[in-house]
Amino acid sequence: QGTRDHAPAQAALRERLLSAVVSCFKRHGAAAIDTPVLELREVLVGKYGEGSKLIYELQDQGGELLALRYDLTVPFARYLAMNKITNMKRYHVAKVYRRDNPATTRGRYREFYQCDFDIAGQFDPMIPDAECLKIVHEILSDLQLGDFVIKVNDRRILNGVLAVCGVPENNFIPACSTVDKLDKMPWEEVRREMVRERGLSPEAADRIGEYVQLHGGLDLIEQLLQDPKLSQNKLAKEGLGDMKLLFEYLTLFGITGKISFDLSLARGLDYYTGVIFEAVLLQQDNEHGEEPASVGSVAGGGRYDGLVGMFDPKGRKVPCVGVSIGIERIFSILEQRLEASGEKLRTTETQVLVATPQKHLLAARLKLISELWAAGIKAEMLYKKDPKLLKQLQYCEDTGIPLAAIVGEQELADGVVKLRDVATRQEVRM
Amino acid sequence: QGTRDHAPAQAALRERLLSAVVSCFKRHGAAAIDTPVLELREVLVGKYGEGSKLIYELQDQGGELLALRYDLTVPFARYLAMNKITNMKRYHVAKVYRRDNPATTRGRYREFYQCDFDIAGQFDPMIPDAECLKIVHEILSDLQLGDFVIKVNDRRILNGVLAVCGVPENNFIPACSTVDKLDKMPWEEVRREMVRERGLSPEAADRIGEYVQLHGGLDLIEQLLQDPKLSQNKLAKEGLGDMKLLFEYLTLFGITGKISFDLSLARGLDYYTGVIFEAVLLQQDNEHGEEPASVGSVAGGGRYDGLVGMFDPKGRKVPCVGVSIGIERIFSILEQRLEASGEKLRTTETQVLVATPQKHLLAARLKLISELWAAGIKAEMLYKKDPKLLKQLQYCEDTGIPLAAIVGEQELADGVVKLRDVATRQEVRM
Repeated sequence: QGTRDHAPAQAALRERLLSAVVSCFKRHGAAAIDTPVLELREVLVGKYGEGSKLIYELQDQGGELLALRYDLTVPFARYLAMNKITNMKRYHVAKVYRRDNPATTRGRYREFYQCDFDIAGQFDPMIPDAECLKIVHEILSDLQLGDFVIKVNDRRILNGVLAVCGVPENNFIPACSTVDKLDKMPWEEVRREMVRERGLSPEAADRIGEYVQLHGGLDLIEQLLQDPKLSQNKLAKEGLGDMKLLFEYLTLFGITGKISFDLSLARGLDYYTGVIFEAVLLQQDNEHGEEPASVGSVAGGGRYDGLVGMFDPKGRKVPCVGVSIGIERIFSILEQRLEASGEKLRTTETQVLVATPQKHLLAARLKLISELWAAGIKAEMLYKKDPKLLKQLQYCEDTGIPLAAIVGEQELADGVVKLRDVATRQEVRM
Repeated sequence: QGTRDHAPAQAALRERLLSAVVSCFKRHGAAAIDTPVLELREVLVGKYGEGSKLIYELQDQGGELLALRYDLTVPFARYLAMNKITNMKRYHVAKVYRRDNPATTRGRYREFYQCDFDIAGQFDPMIPDAECLKIVHEILSDLQLGDFVIKVNDRRILNGVLAVCGVPENNFIPACSTVDKLDKMPWEEVRREMVRERGLSPEAADRIGEYVQLHGGLDLIEQLLQDPKLSQNKLAKEGLGDMKLLFEYLTLFGITGKISFDLSLARGLDYYTGVIFEAVLLQQDNEHGEEPASVGSVAGGGRYDGLVGMFDPKGRKVPCVGVSIGIERIFSILEQRLEASGEKLRTTETQVLVATPQKHLLAARLKLISELWAAGIKAEMLYKKDPKLLKQLQYCEDTGIPLAAIVGEQELADGVVKLRDVATRQEVRM
């Protein structure tokens, strides 16, 4: 349940998609690492908030207690701490596992790929953070998924807002996860949940509502820096100062047109400590001039300065910021688009089929194909002793092989091969 | 235990190795598929003989009873049966899991990659089987691992030998797995195990010994086809006939020099039904003219005509033959060789570092790097506001970046960039 086989057409589409993502990561100078699918259970415990109950555990068959990784970020942090690495730019493309309710048409699976890019190290503020946003912008633009917006916020700003609205600190995390629902439900419902389920006072909820419904750009940052309450809060002020710097860098990158500073963005994971962001695709066909509706998150990430320290015996921190591309949802979109277009993706790269027009020529085919392979040419033949020529040409058409190299008795006698262009039926002897 | 992280240098080496293997599979016209790491436990049960006790099971957290895949062959057979596919040439490169005793210096892990190529379908005998052996030959030659031999046998020949030596049929599998140890221990010990542990009579064991110590080529096949006892056994005769045909095709491929028909080869897995093979590397430095010693198996495979039928509700069979490349052992060898050579593998592909020689030029760097990325150039910069030029050039040397694009105040004023070759220190303004 919640997993799937990839048939060749799907595997080919996925390879194309992953290679677009990986080439962006490489363009930004990241190195690849790989970590096991299995982690010690204790490594994963307490890192994912409500997500922790979705972790797959392995049966105790003796030895260590293991679980399947839930994301690639926690294993990365564990890797950095274990190897005492304080400086690294890496990408990792691999499967992760969550015992979630699958919604496969929307691209939600229990086994799914993540494509992560992270920068670890002590640097000047917001430079690596800006690069992560640039990467999201490049990938979503390259893949031509249609219009998108990248929402940005900062956990420090959010916590500052909650503090100045009178929420006690031990209620920050549940309050955050309620705020996070503003992209899926109207403010009235979010407010109701805050008051009824999270135990906030109606007045606090109203005050929060005034902030978290705001979104904008540099203007909004300036406005909040002047806000009489928020500017008094140390955390919020730090976050806003950094947000201003981030927007400066994003302006130099030329991408602020797709960036929205959005105070409702909270993100579910416990480990974020600073900037957080999430990219959403906007509805395409919208003839009525309404505000474009979101069709779901396709990338997300943020800063997590405390996670590596949780794995270091002395608690030494390594600041990190990273992004994860939501490859499954993008894959679903591309798959549906491909289906709608009727285009057939080739599943092999074979350049030439070695064929014979008469019987008793298997030996000639085996010798010729052997020469082609030795020359690095992608070649196939039918696994029949005496296949009909029509069948062989049909196979080319079915699988998209552009050329047939034909050896018959005459060609053998003349020491030549007849090369046939399958589509045009043109032949040359060579 | 028995798993490992891949640091960037290892991940880069692995990428190089896997891409050599995959390009061979693509040269032979295979399509990629992907299946989940998780399989239903019932899918894996009873397919691996003694290996079954090494299967990792997932904890029962409600829902289906799951296990981690043990190889890629059984999931492939399950995939074919589930989708009623009767004809397919596919490759699959992915991790598999075995609760084995790890021997990590020899490349034996609990989580490890397999690289499989398989041909499913009803074809004329031995043509796909010969291609599998050709693939092993190409890959081991391409990787320049040194001398190797590919041992070939047939389960039907082996069973025929056991039958004519008087072994009862229900004792074939244990007798086979004892025979299989002939590459690791002398015949005397194998004989002792047969008699003491497998309950064979000393006479039967002696008769078996006369056969299973034989190895050779076409001559040996001809000799056994004339063998008064073996030629009376239907299975053995079929197997020997096919072996002769196989050698004919391998001769046309020009690879018989590395092929040894070896009657001691048995292979452990239950599902093989016909041709089986295993490639072993031969000891390199052998100054004393001794027979080259094997340093372990690096590829193996065979024909399994019954496996798909085990997953089909009506038991419909799909004949299959395939090969698995033992990538971990090869990886160990390449890793040790790289270490010995002192060569440093680059872990990134960055072409140019964007650098500044004075302070307050971060904006210039951000704008220039943005242009380079847009042009598809792999570019990095240090995440510091005002890094020293020396530090920037040092970073190029440490990570192998060949070029630095330098913008200083003068270059900004002149509207140029200074491009520096890091190794030669030559500079051009452009």
